Amino acid sequence: MVGSLLSRTRLSGMATPFSFKLHHVDRGCAARRSSLTTPHGVVELPTFMPVGTQGTIKGLTVSQVRETGAQIVLGNTYHLALRPGEDVVSDLGGLHRFMGWDGPILTDSGGFQVFSLAESTKVTEQSAVFQSHIDGKKLELSPERSIEIQEALGSDIAMVLDHVIALPASDEDVLDACERTIRWAQRCLKARSRSDQAQFAIVQGGLSRELRIACAQQLAAFPEFEGYAIGGLSVGEGEADMLRMIEATCPVLPIEKPRYLMGVGTPKDLVEAIRRGVDMFDCIIPSHNGRNALAYTDGGRLRMRNLCHQRDERPLEEGCPCPACQHSRGYIRHLFLANEMLGPILLTAHNVTYYQRLVAEARAAIANDSYMDFYHEKIVGWQREKPD
Amino acid sequence: MVGSLLSRTRLSGMATPFSFKLHHVDRGCAARRSSLTTPHGVVELPTFMPVGTQGTIKGLTVSQVRETGAQIVLGNTYHLALRPGEDVVSDLGGLHRFMGWDGPILTDSGGFQVFSLAESTKVTEQSAVFQSHIDGKKLELSPERSIEIQEALGSDIAMVLDHVIALPASDEDVLDACERTIRWAQRCLKARSRSDQAQFAIVQGGLSRELRIACAQQLAAFPEFEGYAIGGLSVGEGEADMLRMIEATCPVLPIEKPRYLMGVGTPKDLVEAIRRGVDMFDCIIPSHNGRNALAYTDGGRLRMRNLCHQRDERPLEEGCPCPACQHSRGYIRHLFLANEMLGPILLTAHNVTYYQRLVAEARAAIANDSYMDFYHEKIVGWQREKPD
Repeated sequence: MVGSLLSRTRLSGMATPFSFKLHHVDRGCAARRSSLTTPHGVVELPTFMPVGTQGTIKGLTVSQVRETGAQIVLGNTYHLALRPGEDVVSDLGGLHRFMGWDGPILTDSGGFQVFSLAESTKVTEQSAVFQSHIDGKKLELSPERSIEIQEALGSDIAMVLDHVIALPASDEDVLDACERTIRWAQRCLKARSRSDQAQFAIVQGGLSRELRIACAQQLAAFPEFEGYAIGGLSVGEGEADMLRMIEATCPVLPIEKPRYLMGVGTPKDLVEAIRRGVDMFDCIIPSHNGRNALAYTDGGRLRMRNLCHQRDERPLEEGCPCPACQHSRGYIRHLFLANEMLGPILLTAHNVTYYQRLVAEARAAIANDSYMDFYHEKIVGWQREKPD
Repeated sequence: MVGSLLSRTRLSGMATPFSFKLHHVDRGCAARRSSLTTPHGVVELPTFMPVGTQGTIKGLTVSQVRETGAQIVLGNTYHLALRPGEDVVSDLGGLHRFMGWDGPILTDSGGFQVFSLAESTKVTEQSAVFQSHIDGKKLELSPERSIEIQEALGSDIAMVLDHVIALPASDEDVLDACERTIRWAQRCLKARSRSDQAQFAIVQGGLSRELRIACAQQLAAFPEFEGYAIGGLSVGEGEADMLRMIEATCPVLPIEKPRYLMGVGTPKDLVEAIRRGVDMFDCIIPSHNGRNALAYTDGGRLRMRNLCHQRDERPLEEGCPCPACQHSRGYIRHLFLANEMLGPILLTAHNVTYYQRLVAEARAAIANDSYMDFYHEKIVGWQREKPD
């Protein structure tokens, strides 16, 4: 307790290396154009963070990640703590040096994986106890431990440990998890000892507008958080429910802090959420689906194993600067049919590039007060997708 | 017959886009510094050709291949003819455009795969009949068909179809295959219809000095071949036998033509063969072993899954410009233990870069008449390799 009081005192006396600047809100909707400054550089918002689960965006070198246009990447605390261990990452110079990524990094708290991937998870007020999905070893994740790991990793932005529950759930369970999330967020603040790592709180509350609003209000009362996330969505609840929760939450969050929608989503999810005031996203969809031969384009998705691509000389998307679009669709199809690693590599690069181009276009549109034009243009394009 | 006479007449009246220039022979051994000009650029010899079996160097984009220092790559006729089919490659603009590689390409004849990978292979004087290893379909590969496929692929250098036999074999079988190889080579010459594709003949003869010399002499009598390969080696015969065959063959080959040792080898094999007058190599060793966590360095090989690398901050090789060497050994080890694609990708890039640096150093040493110093320095370095 003395230790954490000292920490807080020390921190409060230091200039923060973080700042958020809201440049503009679109005249036609709630879309925001802003910038987030971190110790490893500035992130232009809205932004999409590719997921580097185990210290690598699967299949891409860091220069290839940079070439997609990505400005910030996400690392997974649960995975890195299990393997190679945060002490190894720390001994090798921290996560930035370990991955070779000198831009900003956000780490999640490990909570989502503990509640979805780990085995035999049990939650008490103190912590979540679980078994490693790799070797069954019994481990414990508390708010303090999550921050300790994230500080050892040295990410620019740490997420608080939240209590994620599977939906649908009883009102009572949702409320209980939501209240615990708020208490745990405060413990994360207290556990903080690095002034060069921001903390984002996470709004939970299931599919209840009232709970989401109450949770957001209570967390917004802590000015120590450098940003706010909306968690527990995109877990199968359907688009309408997700958008309803975003619409409930965003207006309650402080206008001068970034807003991060966790684990979302499809290109359509991104443009819908940006329209409603969300600034940051992360998702495995572009990389995961890329590895499985699905390419995103402005004309909808392309299934690259299909015969129709066999002799198609066109790139996936005209004008796309990614390494996949230096090739024909016929070549990409060949790579997948021949089980060549280069197929997943190229489609990962393409899809992550597609997402980066999408948020870059969104930023330009907002600055120009034309976000809704951009929005409708994209939606119409995606609807042109041909059925298989 | 009329067709091929016409072709030959037409070809003989055209300026050839191929030339070979022997710059220097080292004063201390038979190592040669030379250049080979092709329609897609000049290759500085000695050179190492990374293997792009199915139209891709496994795991690398073409810019990454270029960044290794590779000047020419190899494509596999057998694999490409089976999948996607040479007609598809041709429809998509030929192999250069298909792969996105604008440098020189050499294609093998398909013979090696027909005799090693395909099933139920039967050889007659006319052709080899076999079953596809992919779907069991019955196919035929004749000298004429091999050249037809390679012309459709549009490689810069085609290899003649040779009769490869497994060793050890009876003297009679070796002689028979060797004589057939010479007759098939002549049929390949007659089948030629593109003036922008060179043909290299292949010397066979098992482990018999006499047969190798006789085969080389007979093939050398055809000035139409732009180069000569030594085939059927590095198939388990041991280093001493391989070097003995190289020593028998090289002096018989025309001095003003490039010499290509097929399917070889380890870094030591390369420096041994260059010393004896070989100019070109291809091998899957750097990429295959890279995918399996083995890294080549001047201090010997590193097994990257080993615990000793866990917290090692050093790169694989000091001063190596490859993307793997931007990272610590500890990171590379982590990638392999976590089954991340980036591990195989980075070690492929590293090993192919290592081979390219090796031949570049060999070229510089030859030009400087110091090849044997270079040779001994490398051998001593590799002997420092630590046992597991």
